[in-house]
Formats: sequence, C-alpha cells, structure tokens
Amino acid sequence: MTQKATRIAALKAMLGDDLVLAGEDIARYCRDWHGDVISDALAVLRPRTTEDVSACVRATNSLGVSLVPQGGNTGLVLGGIPDEPAHQVIISLERMNRIRMLDTDDFSAVVEAGAVLGSFKDKVEEAGLFFPLALGAQGSCQIGGNVSTNAGGINVLRYGMTRELVLGLEVVLPDGSIFDGLSTLRKDNRGIDLKQLFIGAEGTLGIVTAVAVKLMPKPSQVATALLGLKSLEDAIALYRRARHDCCDLMSAFEFMPPLAFTLAREAMPDLAMPLSGENPAYVLMEISGSGLVDIDDLMQRFLEGALNDGLVIDGVIASSNSHARNLWLFREGMNEGQAKRGPHLRTDVSVPLSKLPAFVRDAETAVMASLPDCLCVSYGHIGDGNVHLNVLPPSHLPRAEKDQRIYLAKNIINEVVDAFGGSISAEHGIGRLKRPDFEARLPDVQRQLLTAIKTAIDPNSDMNRGCQLNFASTIP
Amino acid sequence: MTQKATRIAALKAMLGDDLVLAGEDIARYCRDWHGDVISDALAVLRPRTTEDVSACVRATNSLGVSLVPQGGNTGLVLGGIPDEPAHQVIISLERMNRIRMLDTDDFSAVVEAGAVLGSFKDKVEEAGLFFPLALGAQGSCQIGGNVSTNAGGINVLRYGMTRELVLGLEVVLPDGSIFDGLSTLRKDNRGIDLKQLFIGAEGTLGIVTAVAVKLMPKPSQVATALLGLKSLEDAIALYRRARHDCCDLMSAFEFMPPLAFTLAREAMPDLAMPLSGENPAYVLMEISGSGLVDIDDLMQRFLEGALNDGLVIDGVIASSNSHARNLWLFREGMNEGQAKRGPHLRTDVSVPLSKLPAFVRDAETAVMASLPDCLCVSYGHIGDGNVHLNVLPPSHLPRAEKDQRIYLAKNIINEVVDAFGGSISAEHGIGRLKRPDFEARLPDVQRQLLTAIKTAIDPNSDMNRGCQLNFASTIP
Repeated sequence: MTQKATRIAALKAMLGDDLVLAGEDIARYCRDWHGDVISDALAVLRPRTTEDVSACVRATNSLGVSLVPQGGNTGLVLGGIPDEPAHQVIISLERMNRIRMLDTDDFSAVVEAGAVLGSFKDKVEEAGLFFPLALGAQGSCQIGGNVSTNAGGINVLRYGMTRELVLGLEVVLPDGSIFDGLSTLRKDNRGIDLKQLFIGAEGTLGIVTAVAVKLMPKPSQVATALLGLKSLEDAIALYRRARHDCCDLMSAFEFMPPLAFTLAREAMPDLAMPLSGENPAYVLMEISGSGLVDIDDLMQRFLEGALNDGLVIDGVIASSNSHARNLWLFREGMNEGQAKRGPHLRTDVSVPLSKLPAFVRDAETAVMASLPDCLCVSYGHIGDGNVHLNVLPPSHLPRAEKDQRIYLAKNIINEVVDAFGGSISAEHGIGRLKRPDFEARLPDVQRQLLTAIKTAIDPNSDMNRGCQLNFASTIP
Repeated sequence: MTQKATRIAALKAMLGDDLVLAGEDIARYCRDWHGDVISDALAVLRPRTTEDVSACVRATNSLGVSLVPQGGNTGLVLGGIPDEPAHQVIISLERMNRIRMLDTDDFSAVVEAGAVLGSFKDKVEEAGLFFPLALGAQGSCQIGGNVSTNAGGINVLRYGMTRELVLGLEVVLPDGSIFDGLSTLRKDNRGIDLKQLFIGAEGTLGIVTAVAVKLMPKPSQVATALLGLKSLEDAIALYRRARHDCCDLMSAFEFMPPLAFTLAREAMPDLAMPLSGENPAYVLMEISGSGLVDIDDLMQRFLEGALNDGLVIDGVIASSNSHARNLWLFREGMNEGQAKRGPHLRTDVSVPLSKLPAFVRDAETAVMASLPDCLCVSYGHIGDGNVHLNVLPPSHLPRAEKDQRIYLAKNIINEVVDAFGGSISAEHGIGRLKRPDFEARLPDVQRQLLTAIKTAIDPNSDMNRGCQLNFASTIP
C-alpha cells in the first residue's frame, strides 16, 4: 500500500468507517468558496460528537499528520483548505449541528459548531428572539467557522463582531482534551478569559465544537433607505449624524459607488433602478428595533434633517419588506456582478473611520496610476471603517495578465493601508492566502507572543499547520 | 545594609530617585480600598512614561523581585496589594495619566493607564461624546486597572464590560519589551487577538500602560425611574419586557430589597423616601439616548404597560437630574450603610439570568439556616445575572466571631453558586482574596492552559506573583 492508503486504513481502523471519508467523495471539501484553489487531503473526518472530535485529534496525532478544521467552507482566505494535502486531514464539523439549548428567558443559546448560521438564525427567530450575526454566506457558513474567524458582516456597527456575541466555548485542544467553557453567564470575571484565544484563531489552537451565544430581542420594525450623496466625505458626516440622531438603533450603514447599480444589473438584469444612479456616492442604511419606538418615524425625521442640511440629495425609503429586500439586492448583487466580470482582486481592509475617504481616494489613485486599464470598486461597512476596495482587470486580458494585475494591485493597496495605520484584514482573517502579507508586517514582539502561545498550546503545530503563521517548517 | 535597603539602593541607582518611593511614604499604596488589609512593599515605582515602565521591569528582573502593578487601588480582591512584601515592588501607573488622542470624528481615544476614570469621562463629555464605563469607584479608579480587571459597573447591560470598550492596548511585557497594539481600528481580524489576554489578567502577564477605547454618542436624554414590585421574579419579567419594549436603549436595571432604604438612610439620614418602602422588591431603571427618540415618552409608555399588567405596583419617575441623582443615592448609599454596620461579607456572583430569583432564594435560605443571626442583603445588576449577596453579622459580636460568620457565609453561598452553574466572581476579579476559591474550582484543562500561557509569557512568574493562580511556589 502507498503511505496514503496506509494512513487512511489506520484512520478507519481507529475511528470506524463512518467517520472517515476518502477518495473522490472529498473533492467538495478541498476547493475554496470561489473555486480559485483546488487542493486535496489525506481524508475528511466527519465527527458526530465532541468525543468523536477528541478521538479524531488523538488518531491524527498518533499518525503524525496535521488537522485542518473546516466549517461551511465559505472562508475567503483559504483557512480551511490544505496546503500540504499529503500530510493533512480535513476535519469537518458539519454533522455536529444541534442546538443544545435555547433559553428565551435567558436570552442565550448553546449551538454546535456545525450548525449553519442561517438555519440557527431561523430557529432563534421562531422562538421570538434574534441572533444578529448576518453575512452574505449565512446560508452555508457554520457557527464554528464564524467563531474561529471572528466573522463580521453587516450588523457589526450595532451588535459587534462574532467575539462580542460569544458567551462560552467548547474546544477540543491539540492533545485531544476538551476545554469545557460553555457557560451562558453574562458576566464572569474569573481571571484570564481563555475562550478569547480561540476566537479568530482559525483553528490553529484547537477545534471549536460548540458555542454559547447571546440572543437579542427580535427587531419587529425595520426601516431601510437607499440614499444618494455628493461624496464619500458626506457619507462619513451622515454616519456621524446618524450615530447621534438614531440613538444606537442603526443596524446597517453601507456605502457603495454609483457603479454598484451597473454591476448589480449585470448579474440581475431585471432589477429596477430605485433612484437616479448619477450621484457620486450611495448609502444603504437600516434602523431597527423592537417594541415601543416608532422606527419608521425615526427614519423619516432623521432623513428630513439630513435633506435639509444638504447631506442627502436623493433617497428612497423602503415601503415594504420586499421593497427593502430589493434595495439590499443592489448591495449584494455587486459581488455577483463583479464575479461575472472574471477574476479580480477582492480586498478587505480597515482604516480609522475619520480617514476612510482619504484612504479610498489615495488607494484608488495609486492603483489607477500603475494600472490605468483596471477598474476600482470601493464599498463596504462605513461605520466600521471597513472597505472592500476591489480591482477588476479588463475582461479581455489573458488569465496570466489578469493575475499579475491582481497581484500588483494588492501590493499597491496594502502599502496605502500601511500608510494609514490600517489593517489588511478587517473581517476575513488571515488563513493561508494572507499569511505572507501578515507575516511581513508582524512586529517582533507580536511574533514572539504568538509563537510562545502556539508553542505552549500546540507544541507540534498539529492544528491547521500553515494557517496564520508558519510556525513549523518541517512536515513529518 | 539590610537586604531591603540594598535592594532599594539598587533600584534608585538603576532608575533614579524620582521613580522610586520607599519608607513611610508608601503606606497608602499598601493597604486595600476597604482598609481590611494593611501590607507593605520593598518600594513603590512611579514611572512617567512607557519607557520608564520598561526600565522598571528590567530593573526588578535584575534584582529577582516581583512586580505588583497598581492602578487607583480601588480593587476589592487584593489584586494590587503585595502578599510577600519583602520580595515585591509595587508599580503605580498614577503618573501616566495623559489623554494621548481624542478623535470625536473617529469615536475613539487613546488614554494612559493611570488616568482616573471619572476625569477621563469628564474630558470625553466636554468633547461632546461619552465613555460609558461607570462604577462607584470612578472618582479614584484608573483606566489601566479597569482594563486589567475587566471592570463592569452599572452600564454593562447596554455597553458591555470594559473588554467590549477596548480597541487597543499598549503593554510592557515581563521581559521589559513593549507590546504596541494601540490601534483604534473598529474591525481588525488579523489572527489571534493578543490584547484579549491582558484584559482581566490583573497584571499577571504584563503591565497595561495605555488603552485605545471606543467612545459613544453622549446620551442627551436620560429617564430614571424607581419602581416597587411584588417579587424578584417580577423584576426578571420586567427586565425581559424592558429589553423588548425599550429597543436597546436601557442603560441600567438594578434591583434592591426594601432594606436598601433603611441602609441608605443610616448613611444619609436626610435622604427623603421617594416612594413607599414596603414593596418586596425594587428596581432602579434608566433609559437613555441621544438624538431624535423621545426618551421620557418611551419611559412613560413602557411603565404604563407594566403598571397595567401588574408587573409594577408603585413607582416614581425622576422629574429632574437632581431628582434622578437622589434616586441613585439609595442604590449607592446601601454600600455606605452596610459599611457603617461593620465588617460583613461582600459577594459578587453571577448566575444565568433565568435562575436569578431561585438562586437568591436558595442562597439566602442556606445562609439563614446556618447563620440565623445574620442579615442577608441581595442587590445588583439584574440584566447581567449579577448579584451582590452580602451577609451582615450582628453588630454586637466580637470581631473574631464576625469574621468566622463571614467565612462560613462565603462558603455556603459559593456552594449554591456552584449548584447553579454560576461564577464566584462576576465583575471583581480573582486577585489574592479569591484565589483559593478560584483554584479549588478550576478544571484541570483550564489550569493546564493557564499554566502554559503564564509560563510562555512570564516564565519566572515576575508579574503580580500570587495573584489569580499560585504559579510559582518559590520566592527568591
């Protein structure tokens, strides 16, 4: 037998056939969300319980192979895709998708890592509450992956990143032991908060198997508006005004260029224009709440003030849920439209809020100066200072030339991010894709701390080797 | 010279006279907030800059003595008080109190660790914004201590613990190197979030020297109400209703027993009764907001509904700021009133919100069964499941007998906390006071993780030795 066949046989002997998938069946676990990367793995392990996960860790440890934890495989930075497939086994949490507890009186739930975010949100809403994490991939992404990547999304400005929604974690550690921290306590100040280490670690310190989360009152009223503005500077000013006027009830504030309409209609040609597409900047804004505050009235009065002051020059307030859904389609359809134009650079950067307009201007100018045949599309989560500044090469170019422009554009943008004191990964994480750029920017003190922690918890670098930092240079 | 005098001389030689305080002048740094413990130290170091802190760490390392970081010294668990004074040096951050940056456009600030919380809040409000951390000790406590203890307080249910307000940290590590993580980015998902380790670590992993924090819109409207209820169960039901009706605009929801009025008036005899003191339970509730929502109207309509449904049976809404202040005096005066009755047990526990009434009933019953001559006073932050269940021995008892009852009551309450899956420290931390009870409850996996991290970052246990866990058993 080959080494691969021997290892698969050993895994099946230790774990049973049911948990071990190998051969052609594993292809869907080995390619990334966009289909940019097709990899492989020794096998895919599919545990049904936390004890199964522990057994999987002990089994792979005994064979000296590394584990790559995978959630819904919707990540954008290759955090769950093997880069040394001959020595890596994927562990998929997809079979662990139960809601273990949902207590509406306590505003909390405990859910297994493999639960699909959208399904969990639905179950919570059926119970009369709300889980606010919301992202494009919610129909496929899984809670464990959301925690491991500290997922962001469109509601961060109101409810925070995933980290702020987590009350407790259950994690299988690199030696197979189980960290049981599934408390739903709102306040628990018993020293160092160990669970924080695993949030955003992308599986490099252990495998998240279950999560205790905060739930919120369900917003029974939602007001949505799409607004035309004179500039991105005005969008920032409008955001500031909205923070003050809308009393922490704003749940989304996204900005888009006029090109958004073109791109969205390339993907969805039937989409009717909701307002003139000729303003220099657009904001999609949502206010929401439960209970006694009149949210529609609040939106009306806020916009009246902003119109009177000239901050908003055109706008439409959704008159129904389906109308609101339609407005969101322009924001979401942009991505599809860009995808239709072929390979392009997707960035996910953040800068201090007050510097956002200057950053977008400088970064777009720098890209256009070096790559005048490319198209810049900047949009994102303004309240978080988070910009997705994408660069589209001309569609007629051969693939290799497109890839070269994408590579150059990424480096140009990252340099501008550095100059603004920004982050090269606002919400997507590091994974394997951004590891070189992350490592190149990592101060020595941070690198030493990360290495010390990784060595303390995962001394053999068995957990998601190759992700975030290149801790181990030798593969058995 | 004695060993002590030699060490002080060595510190002065290395750091200069200005940074080193010794002799009688250090008494105020060596006793705890309540005056329960009077300790000592080799010296007190008072750095003026981050580089000074680094020099202090290197100097004490070279002498083989341990550092005890201290903020405003308002902690309640002896986290900043030496327990091996012959081998420990206090480092006070009080001279590092500058606001390094305050950007109202960015809703952020960078402030040094020694800044007094109340002064910082004032400066932020002068600039038109709001820093929501609010606790009784805010006139003395310092931001660095707030971060190191992950301080809670009365606004947690709206704005979170200190952890949720921190955007970035600067920390001097146990080897004297400087961790520079003072970013004000709202979203930054570059892998493991190292700063989380230092929040709540009570100085055991390094010394927080500066903090980047989120600022909020200033609540221009505040509505405060003191309400009489039939039971603690009804207080929980009212809280749930308020979460739904008040749309995330509730900023405080405290419960108190009728005894609160007696205790507060023992401390402040001139305090006029704001309503009948004969209801079984009281809630002090605050709704606040900036901008366009009519907060008074919201409070009115919320209370009308709660009165109609019989959840509230008596109540008063503050008619002015000074009236509101007066209502808060009952909540705050309780502590002073208890202090006047002499030594007593102060607890700080949390349980899942839905179990809070059952917990208070069971814990008070258990205490009264064993200690029938004591008085139980339960109050706290209901929305956080956080109860301060205090036990007052009869005032005529000799000190030793009071102390014995306090010790017994603590153990009785902690056993009930365990049975409810609660925490023995909801917001005060572990320090040295709660270390034995913390260690006795620590699962092996957590202990191993904590030890691995401490060993990785502070291998000689130089930082706040004796606090949280007894990592090192040998003192040089």
